Amino acid sequence: MKEKIMAASIALFEQKGFSETSIQDIMDMLGVTKGTFYYYFKSKEELLMDIHLRYIEGLLEKQKNIMEDAAKTVKEKVFEIVYMLIHSIEKQGRQARIFFREMKHLNAEHLKKIVEKRDLFRYNLQSLIEEGMRNGELRDDLPPSIATLTVLGAANWSYQWFRPDGELSDFEVAEHMVAILLEGMEKK
Amino acid sequence: MKEKIMAASIALFEQKGFSETSIQDIMDMLGVTKGTFYYYFKSKEELLMDIHLRYIEGLLEKQKNIMEDAAKTVKEKVFEIVYMLIHSIEKQGRQARIFFREMKHLNAEHLKKIVEKRDLFRYNLQSLIEEGMRNGELRDDLPPSIATLTVLGAANWSYQWFRPDGELSDFEVAEHMVAILLEGMEKK
Repeated sequence: MKEKIMAASIALFEQKGFSETSIQDIMDMLGVTKGTFYYYFKSKEELLMDIHLRYIEGLLEKQKNIMEDAAKTVKEKVFEIVYMLIHSIEKQGRQARIFFREMKHLNAEHLKKIVEKRDLFRYNLQSLIEEGMRNGELRDDLPPSIATLTVLGAANWSYQWFRPDGELSDFEVAEHMVAILLEGMEKK
Repeated sequence: MKEKIMAASIALFEQKGFSETSIQDIMDMLGVTKGTFYYYFKSKEELLMDIHLRYIEGLLEKQKNIMEDAAKTVKEKVFEIVYMLIHSIEKQGRQARIFFREMKHLNAEHLKKIVEKRDLFRYNLQSLIEEGMRNGELRDDLPPSIATLTVLGAANWSYQWFRPDGELSDFEVAEHMVAILLEGMEKK
């Protein structure tokens, strides 16, 4: 039931917005009582945090698997992370859009939990880029923080425009995007 | 007074959110009556569109000036556009955040007006990148649409993280970001 409540809420939050969705709306969609809701969540706001937390924890888990793969180069891992982000946005588009849009509705304590996880994702990517700068795969004349945010921005922004039914697959988009980020757009 | 209403609304929309801000809240902040509001705007939603429209029209105007400068190369123009976006986000951070966050509250007709202007900004950048591919400044083995969205994503995402009081200025951030996008992060 917890899963069903989260799935119904994600659909409603995306369609109507968080503020405009009542707990009653969620219950009406599922045909159950408010008691059921409060058995699983203290409030609508806690439900929003759970949705965010599950999304970002899924990304962190996948990022960890990529980072720990000793057989891959830093550049291959950068590709894997970009592809994973675009793929997640494709598969979990609703969560992604709610994540970026409704964050302001979290209370300070819940927001802190989310921001810590988001920061962790960014720090992990930055430490990978720093490793590449040390081992000679990546140029070392750029601030690692800006390199990290440029990669993340390009990939995350795809939630605004990537369409699964478009001309290019998520894999192809990731390939071209990482070609730009690693090799550059200049004619050599 | 129209300017004052827009400025007050931007502050309130950012702080409380669009849905949670009433016309009364805006009027209370300015110490005037609702009649004054309705003299300038048909509704809160029309006010939101006016805020968005003014923001995007400002960006389009600056983009046009950059694109029409015959003395600049395509690569220089790409830099100018990235710098302009990061700079606008710094100077008009509130408008930028409201723009990305509250778009869902626009009605279909108003949203169409905004989306058309956003699309125009993207098409203009894409036509610049295509020009660079034709004149030999940029490599021509990448889809121009993905190149455009990668540049826009990297620059637009800065609304999530750029801090005017941070270590790097908006100009320095733009320089490093464009170095990545044009030259790539790989060690040559």
